[in-house]
Amino acid sequence: MAGPKRLKAIQGTTEFAVLSQRIQSLVGGKLSLVEKAIADNLQAPYSPVAEMGTYLAASRGKRLRPTLLLLISRMLGYEGDKDIRYAAIYEFVHTATLIHDDIVDQALLRRGRASLSSRWGPELAVLMGDRVFIMAMNLAVQEGWSPILPLISKTTLKLIEGELIQSHRKWDLTLRREDNLEIIKDKTAFLFAACALTPGHLVEAPPAVLDALEAFGVNLGIAFQVVDDCLDFVSNEATLGKPAGNDLKEGKITLPLLLLLERGTAEDRAFIEAVVAAHRFDPDTLSEVAGRVMESGMVAEAESVASAYARTAQDALSTLPADPVRDILQALPEFILRRRY
Amino acid sequence: MAGPKRLKAIQGTTEFAVLSQRIQSLVGGKLSLVEKAIADNLQAPYSPVAEMGTYLAASRGKRLRPTLLLLISRMLGYEGDKDIRYAAIYEFVHTATLIHDDIVDQALLRRGRASLSSRWGPELAVLMGDRVFIMAMNLAVQEGWSPILPLISKTTLKLIEGELIQSHRKWDLTLRREDNLEIIKDKTAFLFAACALTPGHLVEAPPAVLDALEAFGVNLGIAFQVVDDCLDFVSNEATLGKPAGNDLKEGKITLPLLLLLERGTAEDRAFIEAVVAAHRFDPDTLSEVAGRVMESGMVAEAESVASAYARTAQDALSTLPADPVRDILQALPEFILRRRY
Repeated sequence: MAGPKRLKAIQGTTEFAVLSQRIQSLVGGKLSLVEKAIADNLQAPYSPVAEMGTYLAASRGKRLRPTLLLLISRMLGYEGDKDIRYAAIYEFVHTATLIHDDIVDQALLRRGRASLSSRWGPELAVLMGDRVFIMAMNLAVQEGWSPILPLISKTTLKLIEGELIQSHRKWDLTLRREDNLEIIKDKTAFLFAACALTPGHLVEAPPAVLDALEAFGVNLGIAFQVVDDCLDFVSNEATLGKPAGNDLKEGKITLPLLLLLERGTAEDRAFIEAVVAAHRFDPDTLSEVAGRVMESGMVAEAESVASAYARTAQDALSTLPADPVRDILQALPEFILRRRY
Repeated sequence: MAGPKRLKAIQGTTEFAVLSQRIQSLVGGKLSLVEKAIADNLQAPYSPVAEMGTYLAASRGKRLRPTLLLLISRMLGYEGDKDIRYAAIYEFVHTATLIHDDIVDQALLRRGRASLSSRWGPELAVLMGDRVFIMAMNLAVQEGWSPILPLISKTTLKLIEGELIQSHRKWDLTLRREDNLEIIKDKTAFLFAACALTPGHLVEAPPAVLDALEAFGVNLGIAFQVVDDCLDFVSNEATLGKPAGNDLKEGKITLPLLLLLERGTAEDRAFIEAVVAAHRFDPDTLSEVAGRVMESGMVAEAESVASAYARTAQDALSTLPADPVRDILQALPEFILRRRY
């Protein structure tokens, strides 16, 4: 079947190494301080909260949200250290969501290691997720009053709404593309937007700059989540820390699958419907689902949708004054599109 | 065995009817507005969040925290309507904790009805609890900056810490009385204190008044929780909506049991140790545990501990100017001590 070609992987390329190096030289120092803030706040004087905290601090994700926040902060010439603490706060909001997600999805793995829920049991994971959520809110309150505080609380509420709507529409093959987009915005893109907006508020940037930052963040976030949803069909435990087709097993109907339902053959559609109706989510079946989504070209198709959002993000940033840090930020969407894990 | 006699039940007495009537005439109007705020905020445009919200709003607790806040607000002569919204916020924090507690404890019942977790499943209950927690934080942020905001965020964090420590010490018969007191403060008393302090901040009361309100709230909260822990041994599904001895089944070592371990016969102690070692929590065994705690006089003993805290609460309030509303507040500890559900 003809269609867009998949983008080349960025990891392993010189381009990737150069970009990582430049990001490191710009915000590496502050990123280390974010790591320290994360580890410090996750400490506890009693067991097993202390062990769970150490485990979470060591389970380093990509730290994409802190990196985004710190790069924009650098671009805007912010000179204080509040950006470090807000970066840690957003990472905590993200972490708390993951902890509770893994209970909801009964996920055994997270980033290739046992999820908190599978290692310490869902009961402790509920409370630990609460602790991280409320710790984030408490840290945000400690920073004092600014437009950032309502931004954080509203965005976190949106995030949970997104999870609830997603959970409500589990295995619902009547989900429309606009519903999918709404869920993506709520559960991912608005948090990216908040990270992008926060340095704008720190330097009290004019409305036009705030609008540009918000548009950059939202569109980057959508692109990120769509790529994430693509990777679910093409990755495996070795690269992503979870098996291919895992989203469908968890009830998530994502863009590549929606595209297959919309544009695939009648036989493809019937197959998916039968799998969902019978809740047949064994590895072989999921692998066949992933194979059909891939081979029909729908992963590449979804990636081209992600590319369009990435371009919109870049366009939003283009309205800001030219700057070497802006150029790095312009490269982020590309990085997100071509990542393989 | 000689020891203190149990206090007489207050519910059903004329005294109770008169007190309820006076509270109703003082803050009944505002309490209705709190109910409305709770119901409004729990609405949602999508299923099953809407159903869960309606279910929660209809599951009326005693609304003790809002009543406490509104009475103090009235005593201090606060004339705005922020007290209504803060009362709803504290009730939401309390509600969110209950939702997650019922997952942690795998509790089937809450206030005599199915718990959210048993009715909609723990996965949805995790997300719904998150929604209520973060909604509370978001509403608090919407009220703007004041010392109340850090008070709410810190108190909520303490509450979760209390739950975590309690969970860590599940079925731990080496728990000391001071550990038990720490847990009670974290998970219950500080929230009462925050409710008591909030109207003080609303009227910008002087430090001495704030101190008195805080002492009143903390001690009232401790008395409330100790009585709650007593009721677990003497109540049944008809009065409390859960079976007697339920706390031990959930791993909670409370004051009446601690007192039995400390002062009971060697045979009592050996019996409790054997029950816990074998995790023998069938209804007959739990009923025998409850019987031993009762018959040894340890419920009455724990109630006298609660009485002492109640008296400390009353003493704290006595430092404030005499006032008819203060007299009602002085009667609250008595009400709490003699409640049967």
